[in-house]
Amino acid sequence: MEIEIVSDVLEYNKDHAQINRNIFKENKILVINMLSSPGSGKTSLIIQTIKRLVDFNIGVIEGDISSTYDAEKMKSIVNNVVQINTGGTCHLNASMIKKAIGKIDIKNLDIVFIENVGNLICPVGFDLGEDYKILISSVSEGDDKPVKYPKAFIKANAIVLNKIDLLSISDFDYVFFKEKIRELNSEVPIIKLSCKTSEGLDAWIEWIIERAKKYN
Amino acid sequence: MEIEIVSDVLEYNKDHAQINRNIFKENKILVINMLSSPGSGKTSLIIQTIKRLVDFNIGVIEGDISSTYDAEKMKSIVNNVVQINTGGTCHLNASMIKKAIGKIDIKNLDIVFIENVGNLICPVGFDLGEDYKILISSVSEGDDKPVKYPKAFIKANAIVLNKIDLLSISDFDYVFFKEKIRELNSEVPIIKLSCKTSEGLDAWIEWIIERAKKYN
Repeated sequence: MEIEIVSDVLEYNKDHAQINRNIFKENKILVINMLSSPGSGKTSLIIQTIKRLVDFNIGVIEGDISSTYDAEKMKSIVNNVVQINTGGTCHLNASMIKKAIGKIDIKNLDIVFIENVGNLICPVGFDLGEDYKILISSVSEGDDKPVKYPKAFIKANAIVLNKIDLLSISDFDYVFFKEKIRELNSEVPIIKLSCKTSEGLDAWIEWIIERAKKYN
Repeated sequence: MEIEIVSDVLEYNKDHAQINRNIFKENKILVINMLSSPGSGKTSLIIQTIKRLVDFNIGVIEGDISSTYDAEKMKSIVNNVVQINTGGTCHLNASMIKKAIGKIDIKNLDIVFIENVGNLICPVGFDLGEDYKILISSVSEGDDKPVKYPKAFIKANAIVLNKIDLLSISDFDYVFFKEKIRELNSEVPIIKLSCKTSEGLDAWIEWIIERAKKYN
């Protein structure tokens, strides 16, 4: 019985995701779904990215289980921010995104970042109608995350390794990390960066711009 | 309908938790449920703790969504280790623990550590029959975790702040972190430590020993 219910939920979600995808396509918007553990740096990376993408109109959909803490930060640098409070639910779903779309200036945007709830498990299975799923992992979490949370790494269209400024003082083994990712996802780009020192951000910005250009 | 199902699940879980609690009590075992985000240091803290608690017989129940990575590490330092693979499920439940109990030498143990799945949301609501829920947060995750994941901080019987060796090179504001915890949980002990440098581990060990003594 449990499996049936889960399957219903995902089926229902798929329909809503397709509606979102159509809306995004019609409006030529690149949509990026940012996934990670709590504290990997989703908010920081989105803020650093927006600051650099000055030629694009950007919107942010902020997912949180209860607070408006990240949305407040976002509002200080960009106008189009919608907060989704999931009310305790551990992931965003397509229906939540559909409601959020109605609250942003969808006709004038080039890129929408969706900041998912901090959780390396539950958000992975929920298609939101996005173009790309970005998985952010960070040096301080350790190099074993691909082994322990494989689905997130399998489903990612690009992987960001954040906090590389900590590499020199940690025992994080990048060769191991990369090898374990390759066993799961042989082609996925891995972008190493630090939101703190800005090292590596150029490659990430380039990755985004390349994809945004296809829509304009 | 969704609410009813969740309520059934939690009701069912509660019954199993009570069975576990009775078994643990009969056998005079202190049971500690360790919760955190992925990469906060649950495994490292349990290993450091076992190494120091040489006068106790310790068992570990390892929860993971798919790998046996942490269980292998544990097996190198302690005999009684049971791996629970949740098969993708984002948290442990009492029924899983009940099955695991049958696989450890329950009659001869003093303390059992349960390492939950790395997730700051879903495991929080599931009573496993434990005596204490320990929430591990880490400096590298940032000082805003109590604001963003309040339920985990409300339900914790003790909070460990790990990776304090990173305090001097991060913008983590401990006063803010503590203040936000106090708004949620006015009495909970907060133990600052570093599994890397061992700073603060004595206070944590003392906290455990005090509680273990009540059973012996």
